[in-house]
Amino acid sequence: MWKLYYAPISCALASHIALEQAGASYEAVKVDLVNNDQRGPEYLRVNPKGRVPALVTERGVLTETPAILAFVAQSFPSANLAPLGDAYAFAEVQAFNSYLCSTVHVAHAHRMRGHRWVDDAAALVAMQEKVPKSVGDCFDLIENEMLKGPWVMGDAYTISDIYLFTLARWMEGDGVDPDRFPKVKQHRERMGGIPAIRAVIAAEEGSL
Amino acid sequence: MWKLYYAPISCALASHIALEQAGASYEAVKVDLVNNDQRGPEYLRVNPKGRVPALVTERGVLTETPAILAFVAQSFPSANLAPLGDAYAFAEVQAFNSYLCSTVHVAHAHRMRGHRWVDDAAALVAMQEKVPKSVGDCFDLIENEMLKGPWVMGDAYTISDIYLFTLARWMEGDGVDPDRFPKVKQHRERMGGIPAIRAVIAAEEGSL
Repeated sequence: MWKLYYAPISCALASHIALEQAGASYEAVKVDLVNNDQRGPEYLRVNPKGRVPALVTERGVLTETPAILAFVAQSFPSANLAPLGDAYAFAEVQAFNSYLCSTVHVAHAHRMRGHRWVDDAAALVAMQEKVPKSVGDCFDLIENEMLKGPWVMGDAYTISDIYLFTLARWMEGDGVDPDRFPKVKQHRERMGGIPAIRAVIAAEEGSL
Repeated sequence: MWKLYYAPISCALASHIALEQAGASYEAVKVDLVNNDQRGPEYLRVNPKGRVPALVTERGVLTETPAILAFVAQSFPSANLAPLGDAYAFAEVQAFNSYLCSTVHVAHAHRMRGHRWVDDAAALVAMQEKVPKSVGDCFDLIENEMLKGPWVMGDAYTISDIYLFTLARWMEGDGVDPDRFPKVKQHRERMGGIPAIRAVIAAEEGSL
């Protein structure tokens, strides 16, 4: 059985939801970021990057949300979580997920994880100050150029919806007003009403 | 015919090499970052993100290096640029590429593109100061945990080799000594000797 290492309110929620919606057989294991367990020797043996998510499979350990999402979609084709038979459509899903990973999540990370890129205390504060603007600019682009509607890719629900929902939950914490982005906000509400997604969130966050 | 928008010394080199090694029919179009053409109205109509690379296909425009690389590999299966028939092995390639995109490239970007995340001049300098450490840490992980050798994924050459080579060329500029990473350095030298790769670099950088 696969094992997903996650932390509540982290991007690991996307992999967790995908596994659930794919009908995968998996165990979810919480990593306590408050205790800094992701940097402890036990977890570093699972994932030397010291980050979540990590998906332990019978072949080895996979990391990085876009890779895990595509892997889950390919491993459970009948769940229809990605356009597997159409290389261009699949690339559109991947491009969207890559933007979330390398631009949206990175902009967000400057609020709480700025020490990755600076040591200076004043610079950390300067980073935090720009997060509402940099994250807001990302959601502007998603709202106006990327989210086709009703789902990210149009009529078909995909792993991109799962990943967008996961990061869009961080908006308020980043000082970004969801009312500026009606399509993203409506998408987030629709996603939050799906029973399987509610169940995963309750499992992750019920213990907080 | 596809059209690749690139800028010399940018991550677009990876897509350019992949297209060349796949045997694709494409035209390479230079975007002048010195003139800030990537933010001009003409280019923004191609790619509203204002970044390179962008690959214009008969179906539409694709962005984001990991997505373009996987798309090229899937579009030209006989070029054997990714393990297309094995979802787990493909996910390993994708995880490696996602790390390059969202962690290595992002660490590097704090040297020249810090204005994405701060406005304060002193904070920009503080960011630049940490780049040798943050980029060096990434190559430590690649050297010790990720690069299987002789190629990134072991015996099979993949798009991950192309992408690693592209970003490893930035090491000296980032204040990172390649001699600290013998496997990565040897990989970079081997890649740089491949005639198709030399030709793409000469085409991109000959006009500099």
